[in-house]
Amino acid sequence: MGYSSKLIERTVEEFSQLPSIGKKSAFRLVLHLISQPQDKVKEFTDAINHMKANLKTCAECYNLSDEAVCSICKNLSRQRTTICVVESVRDVIAIEETDHYNGLYHVLGGVISPLEGIGADDIKIQELIDRISAQGVTEVIMALSPTIEGDTTIFYISKLLQGKAINITTLSRGVAFGSELVYTDELTLGRSILARVPYGQNHDK
Amino acid sequence: MGYSSKLIERTVEEFSQLPSIGKKSAFRLVLHLISQPQDKVKEFTDAINHMKANLKTCAECYNLSDEAVCSICKNLSRQRTTICVVESVRDVIAIEETDHYNGLYHVLGGVISPLEGIGADDIKIQELIDRISAQGVTEVIMALSPTIEGDTTIFYISKLLQGKAINITTLSRGVAFGSELVYTDELTLGRSILARVPYGQNHDK
Repeated sequence: MGYSSKLIERTVEEFSQLPSIGKKSAFRLVLHLISQPQDKVKEFTDAINHMKANLKTCAECYNLSDEAVCSICKNLSRQRTTICVVESVRDVIAIEETDHYNGLYHVLGGVISPLEGIGADDIKIQELIDRISAQGVTEVIMALSPTIEGDTTIFYISKLLQGKAINITTLSRGVAFGSELVYTDELTLGRSILARVPYGQNHDK
Repeated sequence: MGYSSKLIERTVEEFSQLPSIGKKSAFRLVLHLISQPQDKVKEFTDAINHMKANLKTCAECYNLSDEAVCSICKNLSRQRTTICVVESVRDVIAIEETDHYNGLYHVLGGVISPLEGIGADDIKIQELIDRISAQGVTEVIMALSPTIEGDTTIFYISKLLQGKAINITTLSRGVAFGSELVYTDELTLGRSILARVPYGQNHDK
């Protein structure tokens, strides 16, 4: 696009490298920043730079954290014998949002994917095993995506934990709450018939 | 949302103040920046700060510019007797994109809107009149949005130019190219019947 300004062009270019931001959206964002007072814009860029310079990975669960150990791992009111294994930081936030979990997390930083060249050693599996042994964990919840890679990772970890007195669980699978049956994919619908449960079990009490 | 990091929370907050960026999109953008190398992120924030500190308003047309006078006004191959009057910088870029205009611009920085308390003195109307008198302009194209405010502004400026030997034109209005008649609003469709043109006039030759 002809911006008649190299300064704008460069900033639009930078913004459009962000995910799901096209050239037109980028330009709209840049025009917004241009219309803001200088100190507001400084606050925006300072927040980014400050975060980038100071953000750490939690030494225990590998969640993103402001300090060496994250606020979830440091929270003594959380149940320390349960670890919820997730792929990424986004999953931690999604599960925290539900308000239905009060244990700890373990962020693998990916799932085993031979196609993408991600093996068991590339993600934090050994760290999980070490943690489970050291901390007296009694339940490991495998909250990975219901994909081939997710299932492979669950299988691999469950093999490593075989013989230990640990309860391994996975998220329940089935028809989503509030969804319409006709829009549910065949596989999910089929499996949810096979795995049907007594009336009342799925409903809030 | 529970980010377990004040650094992330603050940056998400900043991003979500940008137009059409909600909390979830903001978080996705922040996670992207977290995954980028430090110098890439620095480049991003530097581009913004550098632009903000150095961007100027063109002293002639009030377009955004890297220098005191913008590249369009400085371009001697452009027709200097035609001025296209627009509301904002975005319109300049939209018209430049068409590749159908080779004159100069005048960015009003708004339109007259009594409801929003914007009067003729709040936008660059006097500057336009001064410029037209000083530069020997022969045609003024009123490229304002087809709204009550746009039409009021066109009317006001045309009154100020009355008696001068200046050709005042507006953008043609009618059915959009490539649009379907059934989706064209009644007003536009009705007016485009009244303002029908001989066959061939609207078609590219």
